[in-house]
Amino acid sequence: MVKDRYITLAHGNGGRFMRELIEEVFARHLGNPALDVDLDAVGLDLPQDRVPVVSTDGFVVQPLEFPGGTIGSIAVNGSVNDLAVSGAVPAYLTLGAIIEEGLELEVLDRIVASMAEAARQACVAVVAGDTKVVPRGQGGGLYLTVTGVGHRARDCRLSMSAIRDGDAVLVSGPVGDHAVAILLAREAFDLSGSVVSDCAPVIDLTLPLATHPSVRFMRDPTRGGLATVAHEIARATGFDLVLEQTAVPVADPVRSVCEILGYDPYYLACEGRVVAVVAAEAADEVLAIWRNLPAGHGACRIGSVSTGTGRTGRVILRTEIGGSRVLEELEDDPLPRIC
Amino acid sequence: MVKDRYITLAHGNGGRFMRELIEEVFARHLGNPALDVDLDAVGLDLPQDRVPVVSTDGFVVQPLEFPGGTIGSIAVNGSVNDLAVSGAVPAYLTLGAIIEEGLELEVLDRIVASMAEAARQACVAVVAGDTKVVPRGQGGGLYLTVTGVGHRARDCRLSMSAIRDGDAVLVSGPVGDHAVAILLAREAFDLSGSVVSDCAPVIDLTLPLATHPSVRFMRDPTRGGLATVAHEIARATGFDLVLEQTAVPVADPVRSVCEILGYDPYYLACEGRVVAVVAAEAADEVLAIWRNLPAGHGACRIGSVSTGTGRTGRVILRTEIGGSRVLEELEDDPLPRIC
Repeated sequence: MVKDRYITLAHGNGGRFMRELIEEVFARHLGNPALDVDLDAVGLDLPQDRVPVVSTDGFVVQPLEFPGGTIGSIAVNGSVNDLAVSGAVPAYLTLGAIIEEGLELEVLDRIVASMAEAARQACVAVVAGDTKVVPRGQGGGLYLTVTGVGHRARDCRLSMSAIRDGDAVLVSGPVGDHAVAILLAREAFDLSGSVVSDCAPVIDLTLPLATHPSVRFMRDPTRGGLATVAHEIARATGFDLVLEQTAVPVADPVRSVCEILGYDPYYLACEGRVVAVVAAEAADEVLAIWRNLPAGHGACRIGSVSTGTGRTGRVILRTEIGGSRVLEELEDDPLPRIC
Repeated sequence: MVKDRYITLAHGNGGRFMRELIEEVFARHLGNPALDVDLDAVGLDLPQDRVPVVSTDGFVVQPLEFPGGTIGSIAVNGSVNDLAVSGAVPAYLTLGAIIEEGLELEVLDRIVASMAEAARQACVAVVAGDTKVVPRGQGGGLYLTVTGVGHRARDCRLSMSAIRDGDAVLVSGPVGDHAVAILLAREAFDLSGSVVSDCAPVIDLTLPLATHPSVRFMRDPTRGGLATVAHEIARATGFDLVLEQTAVPVADPVRSVCEILGYDPYYLACEGRVVAVVAAEAADEVLAIWRNLPAGHGACRIGSVSTGTGRTGRVILRTEIGGSRVLEELEDDPLPRIC
């Protein structure tokens, strides 16, 4: 039995305490037919007619628990979503946990439980894991690194290189909820709890689009937000990305917090949204597909790909008063570190 | 250009500094045809007639650089070796790096370079990565989580459940070198540098045994050492593991350090050794295979699997003076945290 209330260095030494921690916390919640804690490496069952796809992501969010999620649920959904936007069906996850000495076992237990719930929702199995314990003062309580393995159709052609002049840019719902939820949870403003993270799997949104002939590219606007995805596209393609300020959905409480604190919602992380670039003539059809789904009812067409006066690779925001401003690439850190 | 000398929080914000860090440090060293830093998830090319295998491992070793390796080379070899002992050919790695604000870029650069060199040696490609930066005082400089993907033959039957009464236990070389090298590097004893980590890939040792009909099971004795592998086998099978003290290879300087500091070499981590359980009649043949390889010239038969007086699941060390003592499962932390 893991009798201690707090994580100790012995929970990471490879011996009995570690074994019990793995059995009674990690395997108890995350157990599934494919998980065998006695194995160093596990065989995967992937459909042979599809391409195996892999993705990895680290999670260092503070606080570890926040309205709408935990570092555990965000780790599962973040990895699931990286696979999903690449057109893949997520199937398996591996989990690397770096735990700080002194973390309350009850907190860890809740986080692993939330991870298990997120994995169930996304229909993925955690099949391999590793735990390390670092001394007090050398970790933020808990850091997670999750690697996802999935599979996609051989004819999936999603790629930034498929993007063409005139394509439409869509987003599946309002932006910035996750970052603001974290910010409020951390700073203990009076507003805390008024915004809930959008942390969720996006598979329902991405699967119908994975092999759709008019869908060029998808990405989830996490760290760095919508503006950073736009910059990644602009940089890779050389096109301008033109976003319409009045069209980008931002929830009222998120907008209020941004106004009070001087943040720009276009740079704030989401954890359950998708940005898609699609052929202009298919934009309405894709919007209709998304809006029929619970996860996509707030989907909007927010801008377009443009050569402007030649390929320049800028991100331009057309403001509500008819002007325009350049959204610069994020440089020094004007934002709270939230993922 | 990454002009700063030290990692700042801006290197983790998703914007320009992060992009440059990834391009100029990670992608520069680890670049390969399969790595595209613009992708969220990457397709893998795995042989269709073999089983995909996955493994994950976290690395928090201090110091980050030590005689015989770095946290980077150990992360590559550790993940490669987890795949290798399962009978797989390692093919791809993913890398999650959690970097502490204030880490010197030059140190990071050396570590990533050593990782690239280890990947080249092991013939694996790093195909996906993620970097996060945590505030000063919330990390040990650098934590790495590496996930490995490989493939093994469909008829590979390595498993602890294949172990039988009377089987022989082999080790591919002396134990404890890695742990002692780290300990000496950390404590700045006068002996520092006299022991070099055994950090290395073990693929050459495992590949000839992966589908050998008399080889039951392999594992690399990392955290918790030989005694912990023996306990894992004893616990899973119910058999006793009997180790012969005079037969277990321990290098002289390692033995000296253990005697001076009161450590038991059987619990000390290796990072380039393999423990194999094989049918007794095949022990000499497998030893001959190993001893013909540079990585296995110090291989020894060190003990056997035994029902003793019934299945009891103990680990017994037969001492040089003819007695025997039980090697208990590692409990509280009598050892330096070295991996």
